Parts: sequence; C-alpha cells; structure tokens
Amino acid sequence: MAHKIALIGFGTVGQGLAEILHNKGEALRQNLGFEAQIVAVCTLSKGSLYHPDGLNTEMLLDVVRNTGSFDDYLNTPGLERGWDALTIIRQSNADTVVEISYTDIETGQPAIDYCRAAFESGKHVVTANKGPVALAYGELAALAEANGVRWCFEGTVMSGTPALRLPLVALAGAEIMGVRGILNGTTNYILTKMEEGLDYQTALKQAQELGYAEADPTADVEGYDALSKVVIIANVLMDVPLKKDDVTCKGISSLTSADIGQAQAAGKRWKLIGSVKQEAGWVTADVSPQMLPISDPLANVTGATNAITYDTSLMGPVTLVGAGAGSIETGYSLLIDLINIERQNI
Amino acid sequence: MAHKIALIGFGTVGQGLAEILHNKGEALRQNLGFEAQIVAVCTLSKGSLYHPDGLNTEMLLDVVRNTGSFDDYLNTPGLERGWDALTIIRQSNADTVVEISYTDIETGQPAIDYCRAAFESGKHVVTANKGPVALAYGELAALAEANGVRWCFEGTVMSGTPALRLPLVALAGAEIMGVRGILNGTTNYILTKMEEGLDYQTALKQAQELGYAEADPTADVEGYDALSKVVIIANVLMDVPLKKDDVTCKGISSLTSADIGQAQAAGKRWKLIGSVKQEAGWVTADVSPQMLPISDPLANVTGATNAITYDTSLMGPVTLVGAGAGSIETGYSLLIDLINIERQNI
Repeated sequence: MAHKIALIGFGTVGQGLAEILHNKGEALRQNLGFEAQIVAVCTLSKGSLYHPDGLNTEMLLDVVRNTGSFDDYLNTPGLERGWDALTIIRQSNADTVVEISYTDIETGQPAIDYCRAAFESGKHVVTANKGPVALAYGELAALAEANGVRWCFEGTVMSGTPALRLPLVALAGAEIMGVRGILNGTTNYILTKMEEGLDYQTALKQAQELGYAEADPTADVEGYDALSKVVIIANVLMDVPLKKDDVTCKGISSLTSADIGQAQAAGKRWKLIGSVKQEAGWVTADVSPQMLPISDPLANVTGATNAITYDTSLMGPVTLVGAGAGSIETGYSLLIDLINIERQNI
Repeated sequence: MAHKIALIGFGTVGQGLAEILHNKGEALRQNLGFEAQIVAVCTLSKGSLYHPDGLNTEMLLDVVRNTGSFDDYLNTPGLERGWDALTIIRQSNADTVVEISYTDIETGQPAIDYCRAAFESGKHVVTANKGPVALAYGELAALAEANGVRWCFEGTVMSGTPALRLPLVALAGAEIMGVRGILNGTTNYILTKMEEGLDYQTALKQAQELGYAEADPTADVEGYDALSKVVIIANVLMDVPLKKDDVTCKGISSLTSADIGQAQAAGKRWKLIGSVKQEAGWVTADVSPQMLPISDPLANVTGATNAITYDTSLMGPVTLVGAGAGSIETGYSLLIDLINIERQNI
C-alpha cells in the first residue's frame, strides 16, 4: 500500500521531494518496499490540487516549472481544485501531511495550526519547518502522541544530514550532555571566504549570488537561524524545554578581516557555533562566533557544510558532518521521515 | 518486561556492557522504558552461570574482577553452573544472545555456530564480533529472517559510533555509492604519533603500552582489521556480497618517518583508508595508506579516533567521527542493538 501524502507548500523543498519520488520511486519500492503517493498539493500562489487516487508527480513538476501554477495540470475525473490547506489536512485521504508552507520563526504560524489540525484528524506530520518545533514542541509532541500519530522533523536541523535521528536512534541509551555545532551554512560559507581573503560585505554578496543567503540576510548572519536549531536540539535531544529567549545570541556581522587574520595567525579559525550544555542541572545555550583550534573537528568544516558534535555519556564526542541546505537535501529529509514512519521506526 | 540476555563471553566488552547496565539501568528504565536482565553468562575460563530469574550484575562484575572466575558467585536456589555455550543458547530463557566470545577472522568460529543455534532456537543475536559478519553475512542474515528474529552487530564497525545504523536508519532511502573510512584506531594513533616525531617502532610500542595494539600487532598494522570492516560495510550497507579475498590490502608497517615528513611538507597526511566504491556495476574495495590533503575531513581525524565518509546519492558526502574501540564504547554498541531490537526498530 502506497503511503499517501499531502504537500502543504510546493516551493523548492516540496519540489525537491517530488523530484526524488519521481526519480527514485522505483528504487525505493524495490530496495525498501516503500512507496509514496502524492494525493494533494496546496499552495497560496500556485493553486491547490487533490485527487484521492493520487496526482501525477511528473506533471506537477512540469506545470509548476513551466507556468508557475497548477492551472495547466490536466483535469481528470475526481480531481479537486482550490481546496485550502485546512480542508486538505482535515478531509483528504492522506496518511501524512508534509508541512512545508513557510517558516515564521516569530509566530510559527500557520504551520502550528496545520500540525494541530493534522494530528486531530489522525494524520502524521513531517516537516522541515523550524517554527512549530522551536516554538511549540511540547504541545505538539503531546498532541501527536495523544492522537496516536507521528511528528517528524529531521530537516529542521542540518537538512537531510540526520542530526536528530542519529542520536535518537543510533545513539539510543546514551545521554546527550551537550551539543556544539556549525548549524548555519551561509555564515560558514562567508567565514570560509573571509579566510580566503574576501571582506565581509564581498563574501556576503557572493553568498547571496549563490543563493546561500537571502536578500535580507539578517536571520543567517545575526545567528537567529542557528538559535532556532539550538532550541530544537535542546527540546528534542536533551529533553530541556528551552525557549528562544533563553539563548544568548551573537552573529558574525561584526567580524572584520582583521579578526580573521588574527585567528589565522594563532592557528585558529572563527566559526559560528550554536551550543547547549547541561551540567549539574544547569543548562546554558548560546550562539556566537568562536575561535576554534584547528585540532577541533568543527574547525575543519568549511564552505556551506554543517557539522555537529554530540557530547555523549557513553561514547564521548561523536561528530556528524554533512550538507545543511539545498532543495534535494531538504526534500530528502522529508523522505527519511516518511520511510521511518512507514517502518514504525523512530 | 525486562529483555533477558545471555552473554556468551565475559571479557572487557561483556564487562563493559554489564557495567553500563549496572550504572545506567535506572536511567534506561526511566528515560526509555528499557530494561535488560542478564540471565546467563558463559565463558571458557571463568565458568558459566544461568538463572532464569536473572543474575546479579554487580556481583558478576565483583567476583570476576576480584577472583577472575564465577566460583565465588553466591549460590541461590535455581542457579545453574557449568552449562556450555550451546546449552545456554538453546535451553536458557534468554530473548537475546549477546555473542562476544572471541574473534576468529579466519573461520568465524565458534561464533558462527553460536549465531546459527540462537536463530534456530528463536533467539535474537547481538554481537561485536566481526567474524560471523565478515565471513557468513548472507547465510546468517537469511537464517535470522527465516526464524523471525533479529541479528544486530553495530559494534563490528567503529564500536558504539553507529557507523552501520546511521546509514540504515537515519539515511534511509539514500543509496550508499561508496564509503571511505579510518576504520582502525591503532594505526591512526601510530600515524599521529609519527607526525609528532616518533619513528614507527616507538609509536607502535607506545600504542601497545596504552593497550591500543596487541602484543602481536599484525591484524591492525597490516590492515586486516580494517579489511574485515570493509567487507562488512559492503555486505550490509551496499548489498554487495564482497569477500575478504576481493579486497586489496596494504598496511602501514612500511611507512617511514621520511614518508611522513614528505606528506607534511606537501600539506598532507597519511591515513590508513578502507574504502569500497560502486560504479557502473563494478565494485572496488581496498585498504591502503593514502596521503590526504588537509582539506579532507578524514585528514583531521587524529589519535585513536575513527571516521567514515559515506558517499550518498541524495546527500552527497556525510561523515561520522567517533571512538572506535574501548570496553565501555563497545559494550555500549551492544546496548544500542538491544534497545533497537526491543523497540522493533532497525
């Protein structure tokens, strides 16, 4: 039986997931016995489609890429157009709602309401949206559990590099006493370019040209993106109900070429480090630029790559390094969640 | 219900697991709802104990550490002494056999027979023993499946650093096209010390004094230990029925201080790399010292630490770094397996 999914949102991440399902569908069926079927796609700007027997993934991608809307998607008997997100969440036959609408890190909306509606309708949710997890983890996790459904959000930290599932599953039984990570690729790219000789403004401009940084780069360069991830890590991996305001936060925008040079001269490197530490009942959480010795595994992570070091009770430090963004990479994070829901794995 | 386990072997790894269960038992119960109970311990040199209601873990550790045998373990009604391994495997009430007898990488025995007997008796097996996995993966995996039981061996590659479960669970759905790793801590320690100025013989002696290398260091320094891990990775992660003889293998014993200096002068580092690569239907597998540029994440892994880079279809390179040996670390690998069996997770 195919796992039926409803996509709320169809931007780069949703298209990334659709592309993976289209290209790898046969391999997933053969190798893992996993099959996903998109039954609904709902967007604010491109329109909305629902067919209980499934939509044609290739056609979805084609019409959106060619026309920017679902208007040209072929009519077939039973196809519904124009349902809004909450109607699809409540009334479609999807097993899982893939919530990838957009990230509002101040209110978490409308994603939080979408998650609530999905759980109350007995549907699983997978998401790459930091908002609901950073702002409403406790409430939503309890609501999912009360309704006997799953809530997975691997992509909220380091995209498809499994920064959450690695400790939850593969390091089961070890306590996570602390975490330190390069959790934002944009700033790591800028710092790497500054080490190669660019000044901050030029490096930022290059990151923007490559699509790593937004036109308004505040969320990345001031550390707010990393901050949300620190909050998620504390709540999910360390069972600490940390809130955004509990985290001290400083970005990289005040780092000068002179600062970079000084670190290099001392055999060190500046990295924007997000960290949470649990010690004798106290929790400290922080995002700030830190000068790391080259011997630190995090110091050698360059470009847009992300990395995280877990300080574990039974294994000491364990470090995971991988991509932290990208449409295929983040689309893939949703697939990891879907496969593990289907497997009834954590 | 406690998960009942029979330990076949009670050397450093078995004692490591027992110590974890003794020290962390309460935390595991409270945090994960997981409880393990040792019902049997069987060794060649220390004796053998079985009690269907469970043995006292603290007393097991105490008597073995104080006397080197189970003779002083307190008699209680129902305690059986002297059962051999196969009798315990077949007739005890254990849910899972923890197979940590000893590693024979030529024959895989007696571990292979122990695994067969366990599966045929409807018992799961967890092991840190490379022999059965490197030599009989296909047969034993099929036998476990046919008997509806699990076979887990996280500790065979990189000890409790979850080099196998990370890709199987947390990177589900991505194909592993290739793997490169520092899979042997002893040789990495020796190479690191040589970079600090020691010659090969002195570095080896230091590794032996620290317990990293055996009196006969052949298996480590000639690459045979890494080779077994390459075979396991190919079979388990890449579904390639590679055999030991298919892997070209060269160790580090012929590396001189001059070789090390030459690499350093070129901004590079020698590392003993185990690799498997799948390309257009062809598989190449190799263990050999390689000069890596400092920019390679593996080049910066020093001391006895292990690391592995997976080349994945959907996420590009993903790297995992952590300890690769140690009694607690390898004991912990068995706990990861036990918890995931109890969870019915992969």
